[in-house]
Amino acid sequence: MGLARSTVAARIEVLLRLGLVIPHGGARSTGGRPPSLFAMNPSARVVAAVDLGATHAVAALTDLAGTVLAEIRAALDIADGPDVVLAWVAGAVEDLLARAKRPVRDLIAMGIGLPGPVEHSTGRPINPPIMPGWDRHDVPAHLQRTFPVPVLIDNDVNIMALGEQRTHLPDVPNLIFLKVATGIGAGIISGNQLQRGAQGTAGDLGHVRVAGADGVLCRCGNEGCLEAVAAGPALAAGLRELQVQAATTQDVIDLVRQGDRDALQVVRQAGRDIGEVVATSVNLLNPSVVVIGGRLADAGEHLLAGIREVVYQRSLPLATQHLQVVASRAGAHAGVLGAAFLAIDHALSPEAIEAASASVA
Amino acid sequence: MGLARSTVAARIEVLLRLGLVIPHGGARSTGGRPPSLFAMNPSARVVAAVDLGATHAVAALTDLAGTVLAEIRAALDIADGPDVVLAWVAGAVEDLLARAKRPVRDLIAMGIGLPGPVEHSTGRPINPPIMPGWDRHDVPAHLQRTFPVPVLIDNDVNIMALGEQRTHLPDVPNLIFLKVATGIGAGIISGNQLQRGAQGTAGDLGHVRVAGADGVLCRCGNEGCLEAVAAGPALAAGLRELQVQAATTQDVIDLVRQGDRDALQVVRQAGRDIGEVVATSVNLLNPSVVVIGGRLADAGEHLLAGIREVVYQRSLPLATQHLQVVASRAGAHAGVLGAAFLAIDHALSPEAIEAASASVA
Repeated sequence: MGLARSTVAARIEVLLRLGLVIPHGGARSTGGRPPSLFAMNPSARVVAAVDLGATHAVAALTDLAGTVLAEIRAALDIADGPDVVLAWVAGAVEDLLARAKRPVRDLIAMGIGLPGPVEHSTGRPINPPIMPGWDRHDVPAHLQRTFPVPVLIDNDVNIMALGEQRTHLPDVPNLIFLKVATGIGAGIISGNQLQRGAQGTAGDLGHVRVAGADGVLCRCGNEGCLEAVAAGPALAAGLRELQVQAATTQDVIDLVRQGDRDALQVVRQAGRDIGEVVATSVNLLNPSVVVIGGRLADAGEHLLAGIREVVYQRSLPLATQHLQVVASRAGAHAGVLGAAFLAIDHALSPEAIEAASASVA
Repeated sequence: MGLARSTVAARIEVLLRLGLVIPHGGARSTGGRPPSLFAMNPSARVVAAVDLGATHAVAALTDLAGTVLAEIRAALDIADGPDVVLAWVAGAVEDLLARAKRPVRDLIAMGIGLPGPVEHSTGRPINPPIMPGWDRHDVPAHLQRTFPVPVLIDNDVNIMALGEQRTHLPDVPNLIFLKVATGIGAGIISGNQLQRGAQGTAGDLGHVRVAGADGVLCRCGNEGCLEAVAAGPALAAGLRELQVQAATTQDVIDLVRQGDRDALQVVRQAGRDIGEVVATSVNLLNPSVVVIGGRLADAGEHLLAGIREVVYQRSLPLATQHLQVVASRAGAHAGVLGAAFLAIDHALSPEAIEAASASVA
């Protein structure tokens, strides 16, 4: 670790006092002083993880290895504003602690995903388009009134990328997680770090211009945006033009599951349009895995097939030689697991251990 | 630093013995033991930095602060292969040491930029399109026959990005450096780290598809690639269609400098096409600065104006609110300075200090 023996000893002592590591029997010496073995004690503490979407919420309690101990799901409108939504969050966390029979002092941190751009360093949403009342709201301070622990906030797609990586792709330091649902967005992990950019908007590729989509107006005011041709509402509109009844993203998903031919074609073409932007992202970032998640990805292989078709045609051979384009395996749990790892990473960081040690001493 | 006092003392001792830091007088105590002050000694050692292009080479010797002590420029064809080119490099470094009157034992590391994809961890070029004979050549081992020091290799645009950041944008952790010349490529710095991707091809955006360029064939076999419409040879071809004599990228630059109206319009349109891809990159990475470098950028403001026009129209308001699109200030020195910092960063890393300390002890 490049640390002096005395530094290691001091840190181990703090971890032992906090109960985060436990002695793990003796070990055979390879010469010199017999070594001591220690093991992580993942059940010593718990974190609360919350994934807030536009109209749904998932809250979970996990141990320090990310194992879910209890979970609550609810229909919840983010547009109700921070007072209503964060009151629900606080109540949910109390419920989860009670269900898992853990005292509140076992809670070591909270991680929360929000459906909009977030200034990660301060935990404040910045001009979030679908979150009226939340602009620059100090979410950590709000929740710390109830729970005096570190509260980490991030964008919902970023935590999905983190959740997918930690649970299914731990050895992949360069990946893109693409969420395709009512909107389209990406979480980027490069050099094993979640990339947030200067204002926390990295991965916002729903309004990238797609070749061949000129003239299609987007709600953002530009033409030819990816969301205007390939997100759920655009697909529903496309199906209505073909005289197929489809009002919502869910209707599109249901039609695909029923094998409706028009729906399959519309979703496959959406995959091709998304593939254009993924191909650009692959050239730019050279990931080894692109994960496709979100509700439209859950509807089957047709979206993925369209994406693969264009990515392998348009990206550079060197960048696609070892590239995998796969469906999310964490699925609907990606977000809440990512929120848990956001909290765990912070709780186990040297800075947090140091701070906790001061309060134990 | 989160290090024990004893660890710091041990490291300082190594740095003193290596001559990398020197005592810097006493300091007023704020209570307790009087502190000792140390200062970096940038002239203690030197690094060799080499920027190899398709047909030119720059080699420099710098101190540990990146100050150039001596420099050599030469016309050199990278296609002559590694034996010829690396023999020139070794000779140039010996010349530079002699000119700067530094013994070879003062050389602490070498940094080299190559015009193709590089596997940074091993220093080997991987399938480089314009470098016949170089595929998977072990460049560090080759040079270490002459100079037994660490040799760091990277892509030429990556080192330009690094050189620009360290010398002119040290407080900007998220930037994109775009090189526009005979080819088009980018170096990406996110979270203050140069991003290389899984195979070292990150930033390779010359073959991204541009909206509105359908039907234009690229030498890579696809249509509508950015390079096929906006790199130097494409602009020369565009001018020839307008009955303007222009054979090379240099001819285009000369015409722009002479104020030729057709050339200005062609370059401005190239800026717009490049702007499409930059807009996508801005949405994806949310940098705070986009730097435009390369020989076509040096030809004046028209390229930049075209890029800005499209970026501010097409990127998301949140991503462009604080975005600057600027011309490179490091200019023709960006590459060689970046190669120097690549070597310096390695030489001053804890791992390298540790290794050097073992050889001093």
